[in-house]
Amino acid sequence: MNKSTRQTIFENAKQWVLEAGENIRERMKSEFQVDTKSNPNDLVTEVDKETEKYFASKIRSTYKDHLIIGEEGYGDKVESLDGTVWIIDPIDGTMNFVHQKRNFAISIGIIHNGIAEISLIYNVMDDVLYTALKGEGAYRNDTKLSKLKDDVQLATSIFALNSILACENKKVNEKKIQQLIIDSRGTRGYGSAALELAYVAEGIIDGYITMNLAPWDFAAGYLLIEEVGGKVIQANGDRVNFLENNTIIACNHMVVDELLNKYIELK
Amino acid sequence: MNKSTRQTIFENAKQWVLEAGENIRERMKSEFQVDTKSNPNDLVTEVDKETEKYFASKIRSTYKDHLIIGEEGYGDKVESLDGTVWIIDPIDGTMNFVHQKRNFAISIGIIHNGIAEISLIYNVMDDVLYTALKGEGAYRNDTKLSKLKDDVQLATSIFALNSILACENKKVNEKKIQQLIIDSRGTRGYGSAALELAYVAEGIIDGYITMNLAPWDFAAGYLLIEEVGGKVIQANGDRVNFLENNTIIACNHMVVDELLNKYIELK
Repeated sequence: MNKSTRQTIFENAKQWVLEAGENIRERMKSEFQVDTKSNPNDLVTEVDKETEKYFASKIRSTYKDHLIIGEEGYGDKVESLDGTVWIIDPIDGTMNFVHQKRNFAISIGIIHNGIAEISLIYNVMDDVLYTALKGEGAYRNDTKLSKLKDDVQLATSIFALNSILACENKKVNEKKIQQLIIDSRGTRGYGSAALELAYVAEGIIDGYITMNLAPWDFAAGYLLIEEVGGKVIQANGDRVNFLENNTIIACNHMVVDELLNKYIELK
Repeated sequence: MNKSTRQTIFENAKQWVLEAGENIRERMKSEFQVDTKSNPNDLVTEVDKETEKYFASKIRSTYKDHLIIGEEGYGDKVESLDGTVWIIDPIDGTMNFVHQKRNFAISIGIIHNGIAEISLIYNVMDDVLYTALKGEGAYRNDTKLSKLKDDVQLATSIFALNSILACENKKVNEKKIQQLIIDSRGTRGYGSAALELAYVAEGIIDGYITMNLAPWDFAAGYLLIEEVGGKVIQANGDRVNFLENNTIIACNHMVVDELLNKYIELK
């Protein structure tokens, strides 16, 4: 994708994200209905669906040849990353949305022929927009994010992870996760993958570890972190795959090897 | 303490907290030096010390007979709760302060003859002030907080806890904590006890579980939660003690018995 095309698509996407955020804030002032998906941890709201529908409509009327991967069912059946694909989570952190009425984000990653080109993560209630364009760095609102530091050590790192990974589970050796919790400076859990990835990019946490993210959860965070020199990979060390669910290790480049070699053991 | 005295003290305390917060935000713009206490998890900064010194100076010049319990050494040696005692944490969430430059709070609880009378928790960087006056309810800025809901169930609750409690430790049965993580809707970890207590009062999390808090960590949160009908007790069910470190279970009143009976087993 050339720079000019990228910039134009980004400007449209940014405008739509800000408009969608404004609509969501308006809706938050009134009541909203909560629906449940297959399990109680997977809530979805009217707003979630409406927001994805809004993006799908805007994208399809502006870019007839672009494809959409979305959480809520308004996307396309996408089986390859040929062409331009928008990967959209209209509300990342649905549980926070419902329970806290804040700490959730709109997440949009735009991939062209398999390359992450554009990212937007919008903390709607705080009105904080994280953006990245390939090769042009990452931003928090109008402030360019610094490259992640080279002097980071695991013992003084803070990691975001869901504490369920420290419990008996089918994905990862919980004993080693417990050792990571003990050996690092501390852990955090914010309940929104998109925001946790943005915080890694911002350098306010040093890593985010999770065993099951859909493409819409990590597509935007991926480029944001790459643009500040961080790492986003699968837990087995492979490159991420934007077409399927992934285990995700997103972190400062200085701790990635130690994490993978010492603390992350897949079952 | 009569209502008029309480109101006057509160107004002074509020003014000092807002002033201290403004000073901290100014300092955040410049560099700050990080010192270490006995271990790397216990960072303390110049700003921490300066802020406590500021409060001690204001309190002593205005209320000659009031006593101060503070984290940073500018307080008094307080052995009883007779009279009026200010319990102060100038920066709660020091690790967030250092690492994130946000998500920390000033926490002040004012106790009179053993009764919690006034609370202030100030999220400095977000400029959000939580306050409570005994018998008069709790506030987030100018918005009165609702009483905590009566329809809360553990399976749909979100708890804040440090994931270290799910690891082998000397305080609490980690297996039962792991079961709580599995049985509840989810956990969060924000890295500031004062803010986590404020979030319980706000109803955006349903409980906060911790095995070692100093009085300055929970003194303000205590009244804030009591004023919305929540519970703040020690993990063995005893009343909190403002003169020593406590285990703290702070939660919606509907889940306290189940937490204590089924999930919290002290070692």
